[in-house]
Amino acid sequence: MTIRHYSFAGGEQGLWRVVAQKAVAGEPLPSVARLDVSHAGTPTAKYSWILKGIISNERYVEHNERALLVAKQEGLDRPQATCAALLPIRKSGAWWMLTQDERRAVFETRSRHIQIGLSYLPAIARRLYHCRDLSEHEPFDFLTWFEFAPTDEAAFDRLLTELRASEEWKYVERESEFRLIRDAA
Amino acid sequence: MTIRHYSFAGGEQGLWRVVAQKAVAGEPLPSVARLDVSHAGTPTAKYSWILKGIISNERYVEHNERALLVAKQEGLDRPQATCAALLPIRKSGAWWMLTQDERRAVFETRSRHIQIGLSYLPAIARRLYHCRDLSEHEPFDFLTWFEFAPTDEAAFDRLLTELRASEEWKYVERESEFRLIRDAA
Repeated sequence: MTIRHYSFAGGEQGLWRVVAQKAVAGEPLPSVARLDVSHAGTPTAKYSWILKGIISNERYVEHNERALLVAKQEGLDRPQATCAALLPIRKSGAWWMLTQDERRAVFETRSRHIQIGLSYLPAIARRLYHCRDLSEHEPFDFLTWFEFAPTDEAAFDRLLTELRASEEWKYVERESEFRLIRDAA
Repeated sequence: MTIRHYSFAGGEQGLWRVVAQKAVAGEPLPSVARLDVSHAGTPTAKYSWILKGIISNERYVEHNERALLVAKQEGLDRPQATCAALLPIRKSGAWWMLTQDERRAVFETRSRHIQIGLSYLPAIARRLYHCRDLSEHEPFDFLTWFEFAPTDEAAFDRLLTELRASEEWKYVERESEFRLIRDAA
C-alpha cells in the first residue's frame, strides 16, 4: 500500500535541519532545531510538536492542467534537492463556506495558483498534505512541502512572493514557514 | 464549536433500530440490532463495529445549486422523520485518480446526483460524512445519512434506484445499506 499519512515532528532530531522559522500569519509554532518526517504512527524520537497530514485526491486541478504538471514535474528526494520548505497553512471559515466553483475561481482563475507552481517546475518540487479532515480541530488545513536545490532558493522566494500576493492568500489566517536543509544529524 | 466528527456504532444500543441491513456491493458488515450515532470520542456502549465520519466542505456543489438546495431543504431531526437510512460507500481507485473536472462531469453532468437529490427535497433530508481522509485505510470513503417520514419511504426507494442506475455508481466498489427506525430502546 502507498503511504498516505505522514507526520512532521519538530524537535531535536530528524533528517532536516531548520535554518529559518517564522510565523507569517497567526500564532507561531515553538522554535525547533530539526524536523523529522515519517509515516504517521511510526515511533519517533521526543519532539516539541507534531503536525499530521494525509495525501488525498486533487481538489482543483483539471484534466489539461494535470497533463502539463505531469509532463514537467519531478519527484521528491532528488539528490541535488537538499533544500526544503514546510508551510503549514490554515484558511478562514469564509474560504470553507465557498462552493466548489467559487473556490476554483479564487484559486486558479484569479490567483493562478496552478500556473504559478507550473512555471517553477521542475526546479521546485511540491507535495500537499491535507489536515483539515483528519479530526475535528486540527491546527492547520494543509501542510505544503517544497524541495529544491540550493541554487534555486531565489526562485523559491519568488514563488512564495507570487502566491502570497494572490487573492487566495486573503483567506489564509494562519501560516508558518520553515526553511530546511537535508544533512546528517 | 459545531460538531463535525461523528461515530456510527452498530450493536445492541442506540436511538435507531435496524429494520433491514444488506451489503449492496463488496464485503458486508456484521449484522446488528441498533445503531448509536454520537459525537466521535463520546463514550459509547459496547458495539460490534464503529464507523467514523466528518462533515466537510462541499466538493461538487456550485453556487446556483447551493441556492436551490438551501431554498428547498429541511434539517435533520424533524419530529415526523422517524425513518432513516445509512449508506456507507467506498469508491474505486479509478474514481480518486480522476481530476476535479472529470469527477464533476461524472457526478453531476452525466449522473445528475445533485438534481436527483434536489427533486426529493424537502421530504428526504440528507447529510454526508467523509471518512477517506480520516486515516490511511478507512473501510469506506463516505457515510451518507438520510431521514424521512414513513409515508416517504417509497420515494426514498426511488431515489436510491435512480442514484444506483447512474454512471457515478460504476465507481462504487463497496456499499452497505441500513434501514432504521427511531424509537426508544
